[in-house]
Amino acid sequence: MSDVPLQPPFQKVAIIGLGLLGGSIGLALRDHAPGIATTGYDRDPATRVRAAERGLVGTVAEDAVKAVQDADLVIFCVPPLAMGAAAAECAPGLRADALISDVGSSKVAVAKALGEVLPHHTIIPAHPVAGTENSGPDAGFASLFQGRWCILTPPESADPARVEALSALWRAIGAKVEVMNAAHHDLVLAITSHLPHLIAYTIVGTADDLQEVTQSEVIKYSAGGFRDFTRIAASDPTMWRDVFLSNRDAVLAMLQVFTEDLTELQKAIRLGDGDKLFDHFTRTRAIRRSIIEQGQDTAAANFGRQG
Amino acid sequence: MSDVPLQPPFQKVAIIGLGLLGGSIGLALRDHAPGIATTGYDRDPATRVRAAERGLVGTVAEDAVKAVQDADLVIFCVPPLAMGAAAAECAPGLRADALISDVGSSKVAVAKALGEVLPHHTIIPAHPVAGTENSGPDAGFASLFQGRWCILTPPESADPARVEALSALWRAIGAKVEVMNAAHHDLVLAITSHLPHLIAYTIVGTADDLQEVTQSEVIKYSAGGFRDFTRIAASDPTMWRDVFLSNRDAVLAMLQVFTEDLTELQKAIRLGDGDKLFDHFTRTRAIRRSIIEQGQDTAAANFGRQG
Repeated sequence: MSDVPLQPPFQKVAIIGLGLLGGSIGLALRDHAPGIATTGYDRDPATRVRAAERGLVGTVAEDAVKAVQDADLVIFCVPPLAMGAAAAECAPGLRADALISDVGSSKVAVAKALGEVLPHHTIIPAHPVAGTENSGPDAGFASLFQGRWCILTPPESADPARVEALSALWRAIGAKVEVMNAAHHDLVLAITSHLPHLIAYTIVGTADDLQEVTQSEVIKYSAGGFRDFTRIAASDPTMWRDVFLSNRDAVLAMLQVFTEDLTELQKAIRLGDGDKLFDHFTRTRAIRRSIIEQGQDTAAANFGRQG
Repeated sequence: MSDVPLQPPFQKVAIIGLGLLGGSIGLALRDHAPGIATTGYDRDPATRVRAAERGLVGTVAEDAVKAVQDADLVIFCVPPLAMGAAAAECAPGLRADALISDVGSSKVAVAKALGEVLPHHTIIPAHPVAGTENSGPDAGFASLFQGRWCILTPPESADPARVEALSALWRAIGAKVEVMNAAHHDLVLAITSHLPHLIAYTIVGTADDLQEVTQSEVIKYSAGGFRDFTRIAASDPTMWRDVFLSNRDAVLAMLQVFTEDLTELQKAIRLGDGDKLFDHFTRTRAIRRSIIEQGQDTAAANFGRQG
């Protein structure tokens, strides 16, 4: 599974949705798998124009049916709750043997939505755990997936050869591939991605609403830690609305655990229990160290950003 | 107030505590105000050795009394709850007219602690809103304060000339200076710094404790957002324990508001109220934009960090 073939086993990849993820896949394929033809479509005309200008895909099609014609792999790169409609729009043009995939951040719901619309196609959902706070056709870049993990959640019935073909494509554009079941994916991502976003969106809103502290003060003194949260809370609102609605149960379950833990630290603060706080704050350092050691973040102070 | 004098009105500055903040002040003074002599002391012998090797201050003293001798400004750079003891250790060597300051993250409690030990000195507390997740004598660097805000919380009785002298020193090393009362400072920083740290420490602990998701999974898929929180949660445990204990009331007040807001978003997720989520996620983008416009963070995606 670890060899990267020079030519992944697809001739023509159609990318539906040309925002941050779709655009990055297109640019990465252009750089790393020039033998693969790429077409793309976005329902927003302005995005199609910009996608063509940036060369996000070889051909930007004017409608979804044309975009998927002759494609042996179709990757849906639209927000989770838009997957079904996007698949329905493409359906008339799809090859019967086209492999269907996506990049959605929740997997049980997306697999279900795609499966309902395309019951006769092989669907192997995927989620590259990579992104930035930017969105739209200007946000993508070819190196987005370098060193990041892409999780595939094939149904049990999936042909291993097709899973391997999709894995090879992701490896070709720099990702490391993991396979797991969709329900477990949704639980894992609830803690490593969805809950962090929910909390960041919350605290940025809290700060914005305060009466006692002005917005100007919040902005001026944000270098105390708050500014980190604003990056995540600047992510695409449509995408994140859909993530929370489509992975509701896992997010609520993780939120429950988080709230219990927060209440415990709140109590330690109220009671002045310094030992409890110190112990908690000490063990969280180890996780940071592991993340850096495994190449998932920079070791540079303040993420290496400039003042 | 906006002119930066070439020679701030101090001859000799003593820095007590040679970690991230103390070391950075020393290095910044060396670069930007070479006319000022600096001495320093740290109660940890290993830190004193390393501070001398790095040249964090002109002279590393072997005891606190020697460090402050002849100093016309003494800056305490120790954790909030260690301020009183550090001041008591220095007291026998202090000039009667030495200006006393600090860099603590909470100001009401620190001013009280310093005032109790040094009732006859002028104390002008300060808090440079700058830092990194690193600590200790190797963590400091000269440009830490460039473009960051330093908040002074002088008592009402303070001589404006002495406030201006301290302001000039901070401006000389790159900071922008704001004056406010200590109680308001503690409220502002509770939301822009203390609560973000508490939340980050909490969620990193939550992820570490989960039974259903392995630590290895948390680390591998941290690029989904979680890794951002681990940076803050790698900050100095002693310092942060002291911050929460010394700014308890303001932190608990802000935590209360945050919890209400989180509960509201939780309810929106549970009820499937997509409009509410979308509206909330849209307005938080504006704050990020302002922070970037005002030079308090980078505009580069993912903070500009490398993959």
